[in-house]
Amino acid sequence: MNEIFIGIDLGGTNIKIGCFDSDIKLIRKTSTPTRADMGPDTVADKMAQTAEKLLTDAGLSLQEVPSVGLGCPGPAKYREGIMESATNLPEFKNIPFRKMLSERLGKPVVFENDANVACWGEYAVGAGKGVEDMVFFTLGTGIGGGIINNGKLVHGCGDNAAELGHIIIHPDGRMCNCGQRGCVEAYASANSTAKRATEAVQGGAKSSLKKVLDENDEITCKDVYEHLKAGDKLAKKITDETAMALAIVCINMLHITEPKRIVFAGGMIGAGEILLNRIKDYFNEHIWALRKEPVEICFATLGEDAGIIGAAALAKQAYDEGKLKSG
Amino acid sequence: MNEIFIGIDLGGTNIKIGCFDSDIKLIRKTSTPTRADMGPDTVADKMAQTAEKLLTDAGLSLQEVPSVGLGCPGPAKYREGIMESATNLPEFKNIPFRKMLSERLGKPVVFENDANVACWGEYAVGAGKGVEDMVFFTLGTGIGGGIINNGKLVHGCGDNAAELGHIIIHPDGRMCNCGQRGCVEAYASANSTAKRATEAVQGGAKSSLKKVLDENDEITCKDVYEHLKAGDKLAKKITDETAMALAIVCINMLHITEPKRIVFAGGMIGAGEILLNRIKDYFNEHIWALRKEPVEICFATLGEDAGIIGAAALAKQAYDEGKLKSG
Repeated sequence: MNEIFIGIDLGGTNIKIGCFDSDIKLIRKTSTPTRADMGPDTVADKMAQTAEKLLTDAGLSLQEVPSVGLGCPGPAKYREGIMESATNLPEFKNIPFRKMLSERLGKPVVFENDANVACWGEYAVGAGKGVEDMVFFTLGTGIGGGIINNGKLVHGCGDNAAELGHIIIHPDGRMCNCGQRGCVEAYASANSTAKRATEAVQGGAKSSLKKVLDENDEITCKDVYEHLKAGDKLAKKITDETAMALAIVCINMLHITEPKRIVFAGGMIGAGEILLNRIKDYFNEHIWALRKEPVEICFATLGEDAGIIGAAALAKQAYDEGKLKSG
Repeated sequence: MNEIFIGIDLGGTNIKIGCFDSDIKLIRKTSTPTRADMGPDTVADKMAQTAEKLLTDAGLSLQEVPSVGLGCPGPAKYREGIMESATNLPEFKNIPFRKMLSERLGKPVVFENDANVACWGEYAVGAGKGVEDMVFFTLGTGIGGGIINNGKLVHGCGDNAAELGHIIIHPDGRMCNCGQRGCVEAYASANSTAKRATEAVQGGAKSSLKKVLDENDEITCKDVYEHLKAGDKLAKKITDETAMALAIVCINMLHITEPKRIVFAGGMIGAGEILLNRIKDYFNEHIWALRKEPVEICFATLGEDAGIIGAAALAKQAYDEGKLKSG
């Protein structure tokens, strides 16, 4: 019998679910609205029912599934399987989703926060494949991350490791939403990109983005990258700042956990090679001379399915290692 | 039969050796000049002979020793047991000391660089006892470090992880000896402390350290801390800068590997509570508001024996885990 692994990506708007073969190749996927307003029990019911229907639709059965992976947003107690809180699911506090889902499906559930899930997905079958030490950044509205050390996710003493967006790179620099000053998130997130561009245009910088601000009352990160591709100088300056901030955290991570590969994911990588090449340039300019082993810096490859792929890959890994727990 | 563990600390000037019981309590220790000028074979002979004599003098025998721990300076390939290079042992390049010592003693040898050894010593029986996640800084001429994640040393893809002195905290800041700009080492090492004080006095800052510079042609780190204790304002300012730099890397490490405890060791901790309290103050001022779990910041407790203690503790751990290799 071939094993089938289920990966679930619980988001604020939608629950995405995929079923995968034992090579973590996608067989079939589906999506359903989260409806957090109906409460955690209903959300857990929906996850279980949608997973079962997905299997049926794919001509498979729950009997073929040794384990299920679940990724949740925000800080999560992975040891206890508890989702603590999340900006985009404000109704939910300390919900034991691992136990709730495991009871409904009668299967062991492996649980992680969404950044670790996506990190593990890239590590197992994406851009991080083939290395044992990896660092992963998600560049979205904010910046999240994951760290693989010697083939294992780094969790830290309170399951809050790899909050990589809040590495301070300018102690006297910009305020971050977290309350710290000078976090990389304040220089390299989509929010910060939009904000820095807006401030610059409002401050009188010459840019084709001025028209955007006048017409839309705001500049988005997407606008910045569109105008970058069209050759706007301010957009280039803003992007250079982003790349510089990311290069500094790459150097720092190299001196801390020494990854073989650093993988960037999230909406911001839509900026493309221009951003990636600038990060590499700054990295090479600022890294110490003694460095011998090259580190590879690249973009993620799994795209929007990273959540379900990573969750299924975690489920498979726990099964392979004999580390499955129910509840 | 009680097991006896041997810990060896290979330094540029002296080889220190201790024998320990299975609680890593020191039974007896000794020291002998390294004499690197006589070549690596002679140094390995000296390590083996001195260890055997130490056992004899303590009324013990090599038969009671299941494993030996060896700490070497500088970058080291711990997987291969090779000392790559070291500033204070410039004659030695890529010396397979693990194999050489193991052959001479007929015992498995556990091998690490000296910062990891001291880190492990503090973790096993010193200031880090009782936690599973720890970060360790040695504040000496330069700054080194070690990271314990989930009870294991973090080595990285090329055995160069935990080069914590080269975390960049001011990308546009002071040049570091490593070739990078703005490393914490450029703000918080003993060298940097002396250099910053000298620069300030030469630049006209009022300080009781001026007399020291005039008389000795230099200001040392020790001078700075002596004048700090006597109430000199410049010494306080220099120390505040040091503490601020160390607080920033503490915050960064908390967001990266999330230690439960951060331990500072090395000559600089001679500055005492004044330095430690400033680090804690800055840490608490700059850490994000969301932080719930407190991290403990403290000084190391093992002192100059950390090297032999840590090496013996590593030897014991490998023995306990059944992970011993010869050669």
